[in-house]
Amino acid sequence: MSEIVKHLTTEQVIEVKRQMEIYRQGVQDIIPMEELEQKVAKSVLENRPLKIKLGLDPSAPDVHLGHTVVLKKMKQFQENGHMIQLLIGDFTGKIGDPTGKSVARKPLTDKEVKYNAKTYFEQFGKVVDMDKVELHYNSEWLSKLSFEEVIQLAGKITVARLMERDDFEERMALGKPISLHEFFYPLMQGYDSVVLDCDIELGGTDQHFNVLMGRHFQEKLGKEKQVAILMPLLEGLDGVEKMSKSKKNYIGIDESPQEMYGKAMSIPDELMNKYFDLITDFSPGQIETVKRELETGELHPRDAKMLLGKTIVRMYHGPAAAEKAEQHFVSVFQQGVIPEEIPEIEWQGEMEKTIIDLLVDLKLLNSKSEARRMIENRGVKVNGTKVEDTSSRITITNDLIIQVGKRKFLKIKI
Amino acid sequence: MSEIVKHLTTEQVIEVKRQMEIYRQGVQDIIPMEELEQKVAKSVLENRPLKIKLGLDPSAPDVHLGHTVVLKKMKQFQENGHMIQLLIGDFTGKIGDPTGKSVARKPLTDKEVKYNAKTYFEQFGKVVDMDKVELHYNSEWLSKLSFEEVIQLAGKITVARLMERDDFEERMALGKPISLHEFFYPLMQGYDSVVLDCDIELGGTDQHFNVLMGRHFQEKLGKEKQVAILMPLLEGLDGVEKMSKSKKNYIGIDESPQEMYGKAMSIPDELMNKYFDLITDFSPGQIETVKRELETGELHPRDAKMLLGKTIVRMYHGPAAAEKAEQHFVSVFQQGVIPEEIPEIEWQGEMEKTIIDLLVDLKLLNSKSEARRMIENRGVKVNGTKVEDTSSRITITNDLIIQVGKRKFLKIKI
Repeated sequence: MSEIVKHLTTEQVIEVKRQMEIYRQGVQDIIPMEELEQKVAKSVLENRPLKIKLGLDPSAPDVHLGHTVVLKKMKQFQENGHMIQLLIGDFTGKIGDPTGKSVARKPLTDKEVKYNAKTYFEQFGKVVDMDKVELHYNSEWLSKLSFEEVIQLAGKITVARLMERDDFEERMALGKPISLHEFFYPLMQGYDSVVLDCDIELGGTDQHFNVLMGRHFQEKLGKEKQVAILMPLLEGLDGVEKMSKSKKNYIGIDESPQEMYGKAMSIPDELMNKYFDLITDFSPGQIETVKRELETGELHPRDAKMLLGKTIVRMYHGPAAAEKAEQHFVSVFQQGVIPEEIPEIEWQGEMEKTIIDLLVDLKLLNSKSEARRMIENRGVKVNGTKVEDTSSRITITNDLIIQVGKRKFLKIKI
Repeated sequence: MSEIVKHLTTEQVIEVKRQMEIYRQGVQDIIPMEELEQKVAKSVLENRPLKIKLGLDPSAPDVHLGHTVVLKKMKQFQENGHMIQLLIGDFTGKIGDPTGKSVARKPLTDKEVKYNAKTYFEQFGKVVDMDKVELHYNSEWLSKLSFEEVIQLAGKITVARLMERDDFEERMALGKPISLHEFFYPLMQGYDSVVLDCDIELGGTDQHFNVLMGRHFQEKLGKEKQVAILMPLLEGLDGVEKMSKSKKNYIGIDESPQEMYGKAMSIPDELMNKYFDLITDFSPGQIETVKRELETGELHPRDAKMLLGKTIVRMYHGPAAAEKAEQHFVSVFQQGVIPEEIPEIEWQGEMEKTIIDLLVDLKLLNSKSEARRMIENRGVKVNGTKVEDTSSRITITNDLIIQVGKRKFLKIKI
């Protein structure tokens, strides 16, 4: 706190330390730590909220637990009176994919951008208080830049500095093309922070380079530099890749209680601690207890996972839904019985069918060959009894229950 | 000529060959040669002039013989009915020096740009017919580009392609900074050709990369590609560096006949052929004769140089001035006598002076120490007689002639 500390009362010093402890929790990196403390101290001294920026890619509005790692951090700042600036990179969205993964990523239309922003807004509301959030679209200022202004800005950064970005360096080394327009992505992200006068920018560790661009351009343009707070990336259900929609390894915060709970149960054991840390609303003390009990064996990993699943459902659907999802899981998966509520279908076909035709007719499986394989793998039950023969013929009766795999049920109504 | 040739009459084929022979003369490179021939053929067939672009840096308007290498080529196209597009890079002039030599080159004001363009115009008029020239300023279109359009354009070129430019590659390898805005210089030069629909762009070999950018962007934007015609660079009076104002090794086309002639005499012998080739209006046959006679010894290098000097003066000041400059040179430098016409000054000081005071009073030398040194070096004459003593006192008389060095004369009038 250096200089500022002299001006603080003891209570204010305690308040700064209290806030810092919260902000440090679960982060991967704060760059630089001293400046964050100075900013918090100044905010306490002057009773002025800090401006916390979070940039959002408007092309992928499905919010999953991976996003909530940063949202949780955002919420902590919000709860301490600071101002959240959500920045929809709508202008940025008009550039193709700078990661080089999908070179032909289509530019978004204005309509898509607005729709996606709305979707974010609704989903974020489940984690943070959206009434206390400033919403910005960077097209507001970026679309107004003239070529001359762009050149002035480009004159404030070197090619070598831009090439330091991991993926640029890698692609250059591999001889993979980098289009010149991709150099603008970090430049724009940095300029957004200049325009918004951000004190802090939040992001995943994969945003390290881009977030530091804000500091770079703020300094070059004579402003106070923002602090970078980088959160760890959450691996998805596969336990390997970063949780993302495209990898299909995610738990969406809009998913049904049963889906959420079921998916939570498939998280690898070794990621349990990280999930408790990063995506639950547990206090540091509660998290410590879970970790310790897992370590000593007091808590069985399966039970820890059930606690995690229940917690996630509670956070996004409330306690009653959490209770019910747990009961559902226990009855279906652990006790192997048929759940209370299962979807019904009115039968209008022949009253006798081969099991293969029946599975395809009911659209429980997509093809006869899939149906055959599922039966051979002992994954099909009729009224709770495994079907062992692929040539079995089934007589249709009222309330006949067909089960495919662990979680797909259908009740036939005549 | 491939396809087009089928449609040409014999006379037209001869015409194409005649023009091609002229255009090929003295060039370093034509990229690609076949396309130039096709364009000329098409122009002859359709009786449509080709558009020949020459880009000009608005920051250095002093035209010297180095520039005339390209101007001469321009004139050849003009004489064959084609259209010259002079492109003043006024927008480009607002960017600092992309060569990295003077990082802090000041951006030009609009007023400076207009003044410099006018200067070019006046001086170019000595070589080409300025009535048959289109004048363009690239700020006309570049200043109107939006950020989005810049990004679209930047998306049409890769970083690797830009890094191929010699000086970028070199500076990157040496760890010298390249500012991102410098990447726009070739991009803009290329885009200018798109806007102007250029058929051909002229430049020195040092413009190789930038001129090819025109082809690149024309192709990317679905236009017919321009042909690059690259002229050799003319070494200056030092015989080593490219002729340029900053190196002070140039002959300006605005200089006095005597200066021109005198400087021509200082061109190194080994560059004679190149100068005859590139900057005289001699026909290929005449040039061949000079080269052959120099080779066989029929022509003394000094006489060749005198021919060159006389030719240069004739080109920019007319035959009479050329004759006079030659006579002046012969009388002063070769015969060591006083020239006929020398500047006069009306004397208003004391009638006796030390030689040192006199030289400084007459502003022939800047300081007493300079005057002393010049006398000691036997470089001062009064009425044709060397002054040997630095303490000599001179009595002022009417028509007294003071000579300093080889070429500075002053006549005193009482």
